[in-house]
Amino acid sequence: MNPIAIAIAIHGGAGTIAPHLLTPSLEKEYLTGLENALKAGYAVLKQNDSSTDAVLAAVMALEDNPLFNAGKGAVFNHIGKHEMDAAIMDGKDLMAGAVCGVSNIKNPVLLAKAIKEQSAHVMLATQGAFEFAKQQGFEVMPDEYFFTEHRYAQWQEIKDTENYQLDHTEKPQNKMGTVGAVALDNLGNLAAATSTGGMTNKKFGRIGDSTVIGAGTYANNETCAISCTGHGELFLRSVVAYDISCLIAYKGLTLQQACDIVVHQKLVKIGGEGGLIAIDKNGNIEMPFNSEGMYRAKIDLAGKMEVKIYK
Amino acid sequence: MNPIAIAIAIHGGAGTIAPHLLTPSLEKEYLTGLENALKAGYAVLKQNDSSTDAVLAAVMALEDNPLFNAGKGAVFNHIGKHEMDAAIMDGKDLMAGAVCGVSNIKNPVLLAKAIKEQSAHVMLATQGAFEFAKQQGFEVMPDEYFFTEHRYAQWQEIKDTENYQLDHTEKPQNKMGTVGAVALDNLGNLAAATSTGGMTNKKFGRIGDSTVIGAGTYANNETCAISCTGHGELFLRSVVAYDISCLIAYKGLTLQQACDIVVHQKLVKIGGEGGLIAIDKNGNIEMPFNSEGMYRAKIDLAGKMEVKIYK
Repeated sequence: MNPIAIAIAIHGGAGTIAPHLLTPSLEKEYLTGLENALKAGYAVLKQNDSSTDAVLAAVMALEDNPLFNAGKGAVFNHIGKHEMDAAIMDGKDLMAGAVCGVSNIKNPVLLAKAIKEQSAHVMLATQGAFEFAKQQGFEVMPDEYFFTEHRYAQWQEIKDTENYQLDHTEKPQNKMGTVGAVALDNLGNLAAATSTGGMTNKKFGRIGDSTVIGAGTYANNETCAISCTGHGELFLRSVVAYDISCLIAYKGLTLQQACDIVVHQKLVKIGGEGGLIAIDKNGNIEMPFNSEGMYRAKIDLAGKMEVKIYK
Repeated sequence: MNPIAIAIAIHGGAGTIAPHLLTPSLEKEYLTGLENALKAGYAVLKQNDSSTDAVLAAVMALEDNPLFNAGKGAVFNHIGKHEMDAAIMDGKDLMAGAVCGVSNIKNPVLLAKAIKEQSAHVMLATQGAFEFAKQQGFEVMPDEYFFTEHRYAQWQEIKDTENYQLDHTEKPQNKMGTVGAVALDNLGNLAAATSTGGMTNKKFGRIGDSTVIGAGTYANNETCAISCTGHGELFLRSVVAYDISCLIAYKGLTLQQACDIVVHQKLVKIGGEGGLIAIDKNGNIEMPFNSEGMYRAKIDLAGKMEVKIYK
C-alpha cells in the first residue's frame, strides 16, 4: 500500500450563496476557516491516526468557528436557544453515534463519538442526550458561549413570525447550514461526520438528515464515506448517503457516477437542493452540489489542496 | 388491473418468545389481537381506500391493544413515563412523517401522519412533537391511560438498575417490542408504518430504528414497503429497509431474495436479531425473522389469511 494513501474532504454548508452578500473580506474568512479545518483533519491522517479521528478534528474546528452553523456558530431556535445535531460513522465496523437537539455542548460531534463508543445506542435525543453528556464528563457551556451577533440578528428578524431561515441563503425555505468531513486513512478505513445547528427560528424539535445514518451521514469501507448538506427533509426521504453506497455496491457504479445520479438527477427531480462530500475506498473525492454554491475543501491522494465556494 | 389486487401484512414484534411463558389463553389473545388489527387494515383496502390509510388503521388497532408495546401498551421508561416513536411512509410520493419520544398521545402513528401531511418536516422529537400535536388538535391523554399492570411490573423489576429490557424476550439486550404494517392498495400504491414504546427502563432519549426512514420504515412504489422489528441499533446501522429496496432496484433481486440476504445473512453476521414484514409492488409478501418468533399476520392477494407467532 502507498505509505501516504490518505485523503480528506470537508464542507461548511451549501445553498444560495449570493455573491453580493459575500464581501471579499468575509469570503477570505470563510476560505481561511475551511483551510484551517481541513488542515486540522489532514494533520491527524499524516500522523497515521484514524480517519474517524481526522473527521472529528476537522468538524470540531468548524464547530469552533462562529462563521459556520454548528457548535459555536449554531443558529437560534424559536425560543432563543441553540439545539444542535451531529453524527459520526466508522466505515471499518459500521459503528455510529448520533445526537439530536442537544444544547450547551461545545462540540456535538465529540458527543456523537462518545455515544458511538460509550453507549449501547446509536442515536440519543435532546435532554436525554444532555444527561448522557454530563455523565460522560462533558463540560456544560453557558448559553453565552453560543451567542454571536450575526446569528442573533438573523433570529431577531424573524422570531415573531412562523418563518424559519437557513444559513447561507436568502430563500427561507432552504436549510443548508451544516458542516461535515469525510476521510480515508492509511489503513484503508473510511469515516464520515456531520454537525449542524439547524434552522434559525426552528420549532417542534425538528430532526433533519444530518444525524440520520444513511441519510446525511454514512461510511462503509467497502464503498464510500459521505456527509450531506441540503434540504434535510428531502435528503431524509431519499436516504441520500446510503443510496450512493448502494449504487456503488449493487450496481457497480463509480463514486462519480453514483454522485451524479443522486445529486444531479434524483434530488433535482424532487427539488432537493444541496450537495455532499464523498470519498471512496480508493481515495477518489467527489463534492457535487446542485445549489449555487457549497463551502468545501479537500486534500487529495496526491496531497493537492483545493478550497472553494462557487462552481 | 385485477379489481381486488390488495394485500396487507402486520407484525407485533419479534424476539425470543419463550413458549413456556406464553400460556394457551395468552397466545389466543395475541392471535386475536393480530387478527383484529389485520382485518381493520384490510377493511380499508376493500373499500378502495389508500394503503396509507390501511396501515394507519392496522397500526392504530395494535397501539390500542395493551398486549403490544406501542400506544396504550407502551413500556415504562427510566422515570416511569411512556415515550413513544412512530413513522409512516407513502410509496406513491415518498412522503413520510415520524415522531420520536413523544408522551401522552394515544396514537403516535396518527401524529406521524399529521407530521407527514401538515408540517414542512419529516421528523419531530419529544416536547416539540408534543407541541405540534396539541396545535393540530390531538387530545392529550393522562399518564393513567398508558398504565398497564404487566408493563408496570416489568419496570418495577429493573427500575433501580442500569438494565433495560425488551418486550417479548427474556434476554435484556433485545429490543423488539414494536408493531407495524405494510400494504398494497387497489391503485398499486404501497405504504408502511411502524410504532413502538421502546425499551422498558430506557434512558437518555434513545431513538431506535422504527422512526428512521430507510432503517425501520420505508415505502416506494417502484420496489417495496417494509416495517422492521428487532435490535434497533443494528437495524439503524444497516439501513435495513432501504437496503432491501436497493437490492431490488439496483441488483434486480426478488423481494424474497433481498429479504433473505438482509435478514438471514447480513443481520445474522452482525448479531442483529429481529425480523420485518415486506410487500412488493406485485403484492408478494415476505415476513422473515432470525429470532425465535415474530408476531405476524397477513392477507395475501388471493384473500388468504395467516396469523402466526413461531416458525
